[in-house]
Amino acid sequence: MVESGISLVRIGDFAWSRIEPDPGHLAWNWLDRAIGTLAEAGLQIVMCTPTATPPKWLVDQSPDILAVGADGQPRRFGSRRHYDFSSPRYFAAAQRIVTEVAGRYGRHPAVSAWQTDNEYGCHDTVVSYSAAAASRFRLWLRERYGTAAALNQAWGTVFWGGEYRDFDEIDPPIGTVTEAHPAHRLDYRRFASDEVVRFNRMQVEILRQHCPGRLLLHNFMQFFTGFDHYEVAAALDVAAWDSYPLGALERFWLDPAVKQRWLRTGHPDFPAFHHDLYRGMSKQPFWVMEQQPGPVNWAPWNPAPLPGMVRLWTWEAFAHGAGVVSYFRWRQCPFGQEQMHAGLRTPDDRLDVGGEEASRVAAELKGVPVAPAARADVALLFDYDAQWLLEIHPHGADFSYLRLAFEYYSALRALGLDVDVLPASAPLDGYRMVVIPSLPVVPPDLPDRLERSRACAVVGPRSGSKTETVQIPDGLPPGRLRALLPLRVWRVESLRPDVTEAVSFAGNAYRARQWRELVRAEAGVEVEGTYGTGEPAIVKSGRVRYLTGVFDAALHAAVLSRAAEEAGLAVLRLPDGLRVRRRGALRFAFNYGPDPIDAPSPPGAAFLVGAKRLGVADVAIWKE
Amino acid sequence: MVESGISLVRIGDFAWSRIEPDPGHLAWNWLDRAIGTLAEAGLQIVMCTPTATPPKWLVDQSPDILAVGADGQPRRFGSRRHYDFSSPRYFAAAQRIVTEVAGRYGRHPAVSAWQTDNEYGCHDTVVSYSAAAASRFRLWLRERYGTAAALNQAWGTVFWGGEYRDFDEIDPPIGTVTEAHPAHRLDYRRFASDEVVRFNRMQVEILRQHCPGRLLLHNFMQFFTGFDHYEVAAALDVAAWDSYPLGALERFWLDPAVKQRWLRTGHPDFPAFHHDLYRGMSKQPFWVMEQQPGPVNWAPWNPAPLPGMVRLWTWEAFAHGAGVVSYFRWRQCPFGQEQMHAGLRTPDDRLDVGGEEASRVAAELKGVPVAPAARADVALLFDYDAQWLLEIHPHGADFSYLRLAFEYYSALRALGLDVDVLPASAPLDGYRMVVIPSLPVVPPDLPDRLERSRACAVVGPRSGSKTETVQIPDGLPPGRLRALLPLRVWRVESLRPDVTEAVSFAGNAYRARQWRELVRAEAGVEVEGTYGTGEPAIVKSGRVRYLTGVFDAALHAAVLSRAAEEAGLAVLRLPDGLRVRRRGALRFAFNYGPDPIDAPSPPGAAFLVGAKRLGVADVAIWKE
Amino acid sequence: MVESGISLVRIGDFAWSRIEPDPGHLAWNWLDRAIGTLAEAGLQIVMCTPTATPPKWLVDQSPDILAVGADGQPRRFGSRRHYDFSSPRYFAAAQRIVTEVAGRYGRHPAVSAWQTDNEYGCHDTVVSYSAAAASRFRLWLRERYGTAAALNQAWGTVFWGGEYRDFDEIDPPIGTVTEAHPAHRLDYRRFASDEVVRFNRMQVEILRQHCPGRLLLHNFMQFFTGFDHYEVAAALDVAAWDSYPLGALERFWLDPAVKQRWLRTGHPDFPAFHHDLYRGMSKQPFWVMEQQPGPVNWAPWNPAPLPGMVRLWTWEAFAHGAGVVSYFRWRQCPFGQEQMHAGLRTPDDRLDVGGEEASRVAAELKGVPVAPAARADVALLFDYDAQWLLEIHPHGADFSYLRLAFEYYSALRALGLDVDVLPASAPLDGYRMVVIPSLPVVPPDLPDRLERSRACAVVGPRSGSKTETVQIPDGLPPGRLRALLPLRVWRVESLRPDVTEAVSFAGNAYRARQWRELVRAEAGVEVEGTYGTGEPAIVKSGRVRYLTGVFDAALHAAVLSRAAEEAGLAVLRLPDGLRVRRRGALRFAFNYGPDPIDAPSPPGAAFLVGAKRLGVADVAIWKE
Repeated sequence: MVESGISLVRIGDFAWSRIEPDPGHLAWNWLDRAIGTLAEAGLQIVMCTPTATPPKWLVDQSPDILAVGADGQPRRFGSRRHYDFSSPRYFAAAQRIVTEVAGRYGRHPAVSAWQTDNEYGCHDTVVSYSAAAASRFRLWLRERYGTAAALNQAWGTVFWGGEYRDFDEIDPPIGTVTEAHPAHRLDYRRFASDEVVRFNRMQVEILRQHCPGRLLLHNFMQFFTGFDHYEVAAALDVAAWDSYPLGALERFWLDPAVKQRWLRTGHPDFPAFHHDLYRGMSKQPFWVMEQQPGPVNWAPWNPAPLPGMVRLWTWEAFAHGAGVVSYFRWRQCPFGQEQMHAGLRTPDDRLDVGGEEASRVAAELKGVPVAPAARADVALLFDYDAQWLLEIHPHGADFSYLRLAFEYYSALRALGLDVDVLPASAPLDGYRMVVIPSLPVVPPDLPDRLERSRACAVVGPRSGSKTETVQIPDGLPPGRLRALLPLRVWRVESLRPDVTEAVSFAGNAYRARQWRELVRAEAGVEVEGTYGTGEPAIVKSGRVRYLTGVFDAALHAAVLSRAAEEAGLAVLRLPDGLRVRRRGALRFAFNYGPDPIDAPSPPGAAFLVGAKRLGVADVAIWKE
Repeated sequence: MVESGISLVRIGDFAWSRIEPDPGHLAWNWLDRAIGTLAEAGLQIVMCTPTATPPKWLVDQSPDILAVGADGQPRRFGSRRHYDFSSPRYFAAAQRIVTEVAGRYGRHPAVSAWQTDNEYGCHDTVVSYSAAAASRFRLWLRERYGTAAALNQAWGTVFWGGEYRDFDEIDPPIGTVTEAHPAHRLDYRRFASDEVVRFNRMQVEILRQHCPGRLLLHNFMQFFTGFDHYEVAAALDVAAWDSYPLGALERFWLDPAVKQRWLRTGHPDFPAFHHDLYRGMSKQPFWVMEQQPGPVNWAPWNPAPLPGMVRLWTWEAFAHGAGVVSYFRWRQCPFGQEQMHAGLRTPDDRLDVGGEEASRVAAELKGVPVAPAARADVALLFDYDAQWLLEIHPHGADFSYLRLAFEYYSALRALGLDVDVLPASAPLDGYRMVVIPSLPVVPPDLPDRLERSRACAVVGPRSGSKTETVQIPDGLPPGRLRALLPLRVWRVESLRPDVTEAVSFAGNAYRARQWRELVRAEAGVEVEGTYGTGEPAIVKSGRVRYLTGVFDAALHAAVLSRAAEEAGLAVLRLPDGLRVRRRGALRFAFNYGPDPIDAPSPPGAAFLVGAKRLGVADVAIWKE
Repeated sequence: MVESGISLVRIGDFAWSRIEPDPGHLAWNWLDRAIGTLAEAGLQIVMCTPTATPPKWLVDQSPDILAVGADGQPRRFGSRRHYDFSSPRYFAAAQRIVTEVAGRYGRHPAVSAWQTDNEYGCHDTVVSYSAAAASRFRLWLRERYGTAAALNQAWGTVFWGGEYRDFDEIDPPIGTVTEAHPAHRLDYRRFASDEVVRFNRMQVEILRQHCPGRLLLHNFMQFFTGFDHYEVAAALDVAAWDSYPLGALERFWLDPAVKQRWLRTGHPDFPAFHHDLYRGMSKQPFWVMEQQPGPVNWAPWNPAPLPGMVRLWTWEAFAHGAGVVSYFRWRQCPFGQEQMHAGLRTPDDRLDVGGEEASRVAAELKGVPVAPAARADVALLFDYDAQWLLEIHPHGADFSYLRLAFEYYSALRALGLDVDVLPASAPLDGYRMVVIPSLPVVPPDLPDRLERSRACAVVGPRSGSKTETVQIPDGLPPGRLRALLPLRVWRVESLRPDVTEAVSFAGNAYRARQWRELVRAEAGVEVEGTYGTGEPAIVKSGRVRYLTGVFDAALHAAVLSRAAEEAGLAVLRLPDGLRVRRRGALRFAFNYGPDPIDAPSPPGAAFLVGAKRLGVADVAIWKE
């Protein structure tokens, strides 16, 4: 490892069955030895709490630690993450094992960081429908609403005669004949997210006590919205994430033609989106805890990356401000569910392509002095609650908040802009441009924060369309945004995937798809774009633009680019496969495309890595 | 409401939790006040029994009132229609609450009609697999067959060794390794239908006693075949139905290109089919209880109707003989599952487009003297039992009785013909043409009724192909129809969707799809159309034609048009988007198409509404 | 029957409810009479044990005889095959009824053969998750591994902390949050297969005792891999199979365009594959127990065969060495689940097309003296364990061992080669060519057997890629094959269906799809084909070729044809629809294509059936 340029090693996730092979019998020997070996070699250690896989004996002792699916069946032992966040017995068992591990290694000089659990929520494990969850949900509701009458009022349970006389009458929202009440469903998602926050906070409290001065982190996932990551990260020092660009390409929403195009590179904006998201919620520079080093095993299809991509992905993380890039895994494991998941080394312990590239970056890094990442000029608000609400209440079957947010982000990146991804509650002062892809529930103080920031704002459809308990706001959408956008959204419609509507903007023709709103605007609102029927499509009031539909990529780009120019930002028109990023005085370019290309460097730029001409899967770094 | 031209208001569905907020505690105050307010304004009231949503306390008291799904799990509280038609405790609870409500308002002068429950069967709730249903099913079988031996014989349980020694051994036909016996499955569907009939009859008996002289009705659904609507309607005065043309377009079987074409108008024959169906089973003029007034929330995608369509749909209902057209709903509700379902007014209580159009019709109606709808010249037999049988026993995965029936209906309408949709048991005297899209189980007296009517008949494939207990009839299909059609259907086949077979008819080339029969015809049977192989495709004996396959729309039209001409009916060739209808001396034309078009009115026709030139989404009415 | 040329009749499957209508009350009368009637007419009888459908009273007595699904729910009575192979009570009940039936008819002179049960595994019934299965699985594991520690080691349960302390802790591998451990899953499949072997062996032991000198057989299914057929067949005299060419076409993996092409003939290599497979595992000449005689009822769509195909399929079975071809069924049954399944006669007891063709073959057979089928020159290894392993552990979602094996087989048949399909353990001496489409787990002695045979070998991808317990072998794949193929497969990847990679071989361009391996070859290995990137695609070492990917049909054909020529075999290039087969001195040709075609007969060949010019769906037989 040391020879490969590695300085830090993560261990101990999924190790409970080895740490405590029999109830109460703790077997430290092997772990002492492993830590000793690593420490002796001068490697730093990230230790994990082993709570992601309670051992079989614990499941047999307390079957109620198992999560329960929407079908009412308890999940079974035999893979991982089978526990229920709400189980009091599991909570206590987790407290005990975390205390044991932290007690033993918390002050070990080589153990410099701790990871809580592993990939909270992986395999759709945030929400459980157990009796324990139902019972804690009722408590949660009682705290939030006080009385059943208040809940009935807030949710609007009188619709379809669904009123409750007491919190004890309220069950998890499953198994109903047709969809359960949207406010009921949304609150269940919020509750489940809060359970993750609470479970993580319990671990953090123990670790803070036993591991003074160590960094605490969790490894979050890509495009995962099962819980509010801002709130989990708030308890930690570092937000780390697991970057699998090719796995993500296969698993997420892109069209087959797009998947073909980026088959061996991944989508140029997928890793960047997450770097910018997790940087924002990390107190210390964010980490990539698991970087894909070759083909993986868990996507429907698992192609190999193009030679060079492991290096490119690694450098791109650093360009966005990463503190650490770690790889999963050191050596491909020859057994178990992930035996086809590549490592830096092959199962027969030879260096794999990914390993070579990782070593190369380690060497290159020595010549590149990285400063902390500065604040970007553009803020994009990304909201987990918005995702849950629009998942529950989409109106059109394919409406996706996550996809829309990513499309806005991708349009900004193609304009060469650096972006900070922030929660809806973030201070906005100092940003030149604020982009809100959609935000159904608008925080009461957001209009003020926007106004005060004097940023140019671009606001997407359905923003301000709901109250906190999924009701249409008084006076119709955009509700609380009406202060900035004096509109009345009097009708909305969702469209089949094979139907689009014409939009004209600045003399050019575009298409709307999926979603369209009809608005009446008060005097002073400028109509910048219109539908084929003449109805307003894009309107502007002061510094705030509102998009009344989901548009094609070209129109998103045209509107965002106009707003960026008004905000005084320098805008590029990058080709599809070229991306750039600034970190301090350094400027990075990355070529995801199939052909060599020139970096947009000024004449005479001093290159620290690479050159103006970027090869395929190549990186260039120069000083501004 | 009065200002909008509304004269009748429906209330009280889903109100159980407000009427009886605690067990035994009836809270009439609010409802007294509402009824008083409406009555004072001179509005008539349709009161609903609130049985579609038993409140949570009742579910908690008697969990056995919940229906049970095919997975063996009880449905849960939290949406609507969670009750089991076979639960004795729910039957008693429903009796009690209906008696209470009817007792209080049955003789109120403003309450002129009563709706039983709401949309029986919505969300697939006819069939339950509860212990109560199993037990009542056994009783039902005992009544029908008398002995297990008779049932074994009738069903043919000896196949695969499935014989029963006693009715108590018979379970609902679910959870089997492969498909359960078709006779078993069909009888379970019949039983479930009978349970709806019985539940409705119970309500009707109570209402008749407490609400003398009031119209009793139920609001049926579109393209819903879960129970026998003729039998439920037999107990009522009015068959009402809920018309959602755009929702139906998205939800039912049409190809994507067809859905695109009628995106904002709905299919031109969808509403008419239901008007003609429900008119036939209604003792008084049928009603539209819920007319779609704008975009709804419950289809996969929910576009807005074209301006004018709410008016068009309303007028079309009257053209087909409606007594009342009511809209769902007055004002869009800002909370709950249907908060995105448009009303006549927006949630902020302003008039919506649908509300404007409804008012316009209300004004126009004053100048149009509507007579009762007369009998049509063409009868189309539509049979619920046929739907169940062919759903259970399709032979080809995409064979759909409902779709075939609709395709025959649509072909007739495109010929400008008015149609009565009737049960297979209906008297046929006086009809010039009788169309039977398919009728696997032929009532014993149907050949006689057909013969006596002297109508030209067109009979579709699979007619006469089964006995009442899903057996192949002696001597092969068409079984009981052999008296009229001396054929032997000696082989049938179903075809993949990408395979068609050539048919020639009257010198033109057409295609068969989905289904094909090979027949031997006795002497005297005329072969009018043949397959590419020379086998008979369309045969005629006397006044009866038989179609041995499912054909393309053009061939259906060609055969039906020839039969209509032989029956002495005047046939038009209407363009795709134009439809006409007669009511008494009035003649109506409707333009569903994308362009203005001329109505087929005679020179000098006197127009009561509109003119010869129909705009898009426009209506014309003239006197003959 | 006798008039139709039939000499043998199968009876008694599914007859338990008639044989034992009440518990303990055996009703032989009807069966005595049936057997008497058949015997008197000179017909031979195949009697079936009736264990495929335990009667309802037995299920009600012992509900634990029901198999349990992956959802944890017991299957229910009402179709067939509802029993659990692992249920001790069902095992005893089956022993009893088999003993009774065998005791009564075992020595009857007309009963010349016995069929055990019917279509083991039909409707996915091999695997059960009952408590009985779980308990027997633990025993099975204990026998295989001895200690939990050994099992942990063999499986690699330390991955994801899944270690067991005792066999009692191990459950069936279902209901887990994400995929269960592949070794766990594979062993469960092997265990379930062994349970079928054991159940069949129990029946065979009883039949051997009571039915001396009778042939024992089972009717296996097409493309069914739920248990190891070689092992079940090992206890029998005859491997019989049920041939439904049109049903198979609809149900299996072919593209829609291919399904269209062979709509009324079935795929030209589907029946042949099974003839060659079952011939290999049959001690006596194999039988076709059920030959499709017309349209069936159980595929998604059920078209009629082309006239002539029933005769063609029958002759083809004899060409491949069949001892008996029987049809299912004599007369179409007018009731029950299979009432739309054609017979030799229609339900009204007239001869159907299939019946006519069967009689024709019966007559023709008298003029064709068939010798026993000889060993072919080409052996293709087909392995059930490979299918299970690659189903569980596919890496690419559409990777299919069965499909790949069939594609290799089909390529060989299109070259005019006769093929023996053999287990991986078979002796290979005497074969000129050995084809291994894929074989993840290589038997230790296979390299030796291959070497000794001196056959030219063609080995497909993923061969040697796993140990018996699903681990990557030391030194990487091809593991045990490294002795013959000195390679190191250092990287694999799976590809989306819309992605292919270029391969060049012998100057021609082809495509790889689904799967690709990157290999390092030791000195002396010849690279015959390469990928676009220059990496080896096809390599050769001595007489053994290795294909590193799944290739298009043309490349499979090119490689196999080169190998066959090197092996000294005469290779034809048959058109798509023409197939030939040798049996002793007879040579057969079959025309599956849409047009007449010439048989590849030598000038002056003496035709016993047909002539050089083959009509559509026609057969020719000549002496060499």
